[in-house]
Amino acid sequence: MVELLEPSQPSDWRPLAAENTLYLELASGRVVIELAPDFAPSHVANIHALAREKYWHGLAATRVNDNYVVQFADPHAEDPVKRRAIKQAKETLPAEFERSIDPQMPFTALPDGDGYAGSVGFTNGFPVARDERAGRTWLVHTYGAVSAGRDVNIDSGNGGELTVVIGHAPRQLDRNVTVVGRVRQGIELISSLPRGYGNLGFYQEDDPVMRIKSVRLASQVPVAEQTPLEVLRTDTPLFLQLIESRRNRREEWFHRPAEHVEIGNVPLPVRPAR
Amino acid sequence: MVELLEPSQPSDWRPLAAENTLYLELASGRVVIELAPDFAPSHVANIHALAREKYWHGLAATRVNDNYVVQFADPHAEDPVKRRAIKQAKETLPAEFERSIDPQMPFTALPDGDGYAGSVGFTNGFPVARDERAGRTWLVHTYGAVSAGRDVNIDSGNGGELTVVIGHAPRQLDRNVTVVGRVRQGIELISSLPRGYGNLGFYQEDDPVMRIKSVRLASQVPVAEQTPLEVLRTDTPLFLQLIESRRNRREEWFHRPAEHVEIGNVPLPVRPAR
Repeated sequence: MVELLEPSQPSDWRPLAAENTLYLELASGRVVIELAPDFAPSHVANIHALAREKYWHGLAATRVNDNYVVQFADPHAEDPVKRRAIKQAKETLPAEFERSIDPQMPFTALPDGDGYAGSVGFTNGFPVARDERAGRTWLVHTYGAVSAGRDVNIDSGNGGELTVVIGHAPRQLDRNVTVVGRVRQGIELISSLPRGYGNLGFYQEDDPVMRIKSVRLASQVPVAEQTPLEVLRTDTPLFLQLIESRRNRREEWFHRPAEHVEIGNVPLPVRPAR
Repeated sequence: MVELLEPSQPSDWRPLAAENTLYLELASGRVVIELAPDFAPSHVANIHALAREKYWHGLAATRVNDNYVVQFADPHAEDPVKRRAIKQAKETLPAEFERSIDPQMPFTALPDGDGYAGSVGFTNGFPVARDERAGRTWLVHTYGAVSAGRDVNIDSGNGGELTVVIGHAPRQLDRNVTVVGRVRQGIELISSLPRGYGNLGFYQEDDPVMRIKSVRLASQVPVAEQTPLEVLRTDTPLFLQLIESRRNRREEWFHRPAEHVEIGNVPLPVRPAR
């Protein structure tokens, strides 16, 4: 991978836009999330509103379900008195599970099939699936995907409950929950949290509280305190090479190349902005 | 899942055999691994020998690579003086990447295709792939798989370096490394270890040492200190129902069933022996 990226040009990378970048600050450090307004415009707008009103400050990881998800939410969400009040942001939003394919959207398809969808690949650095016949596309749940928790009603989420995938791609969630973005840096601060032993991995009363210090948009943070990152562009010849390098590992250690790659096994390189 | 298992009969479960069960004791608790002698007989025999000579006592997690693997090994493996000596066990073993299909082996195939192999399913509780034409079968790398680390030479492993999958199924490792078993309980003690920030996730000199207290066969441990477990049998009508329940989630929360399930998304229920 290092070898593959070594000759990359500045044009092979794109910077994260400050207005679409969320900093989740934990005691252990900063997690950088890129939001996906092209796929979840209402949720992303509401996340902006929630960040502006400091909705998340002092809330916590409420659920750490091994090989599945971590949920950042209000531990008192069910308590009408103690629950964190929402001020300007919306309380609920219509689901944004999928969208129509815009012919202008770049799409780099993986060469192999996918069991859960007609095709899978990358659009602007996000792993996506497509149903070409129906003209629909959606963000898929792979490691590091961030989605908006909801109740049984599909229009009951608001982006306040952030769920991060920390296990084998739970593709059964695709089009069942609104994906709002992806972790670009610091996923290991989330994936190494102690697991919850309650039902569905919820922390129980005596568990240590994994507090959220703050969730802010990068654009709310002084420039000197920002974490400027670049991600590899996914509409380039270099990215096609990267896919092939994961599909058939050519390192000396590998005895038998797989001749296949799942969407969950294609990483997206991230580096400090230059 | 609870609902599905509620009417299960004792005959739907099988106990783990003490002689094929390995206890990895960490400061945080016990990890229970089921060994797979049907697929890796030489490696399992050598792991028995290594356990008998207390090879692992005081060794450590040397590598915690996020969304990939944790490696338990000798931190001084490369130091000819400080390295842990092997006494009776073998220093190296021929690779056991795959084996011939025995017509007596139960095989419950998943109904959907697999990108990496002709078919996938379960044999005696282990997720496996098959190439029916070639008459070959092998254990696949999904979350919780335990394999035997090796160097570039495929016959250079001995089972002393134990690698556990803690991320999206790295199926590119299938038939590149010998899978020796699976974690049946306590995987969260491994998957929540602090990540290593060295190359390939290796811990670096100043990192805290995640020491192995011991690795023993259950059969070496007094009965009162054993952790008797049962796993769901995978050659039963009930297990077919379980596969279907994962393939099409029928809980009220799910809006759209996936009509597909990857081998990495089929869990194997485990419970205390009754």
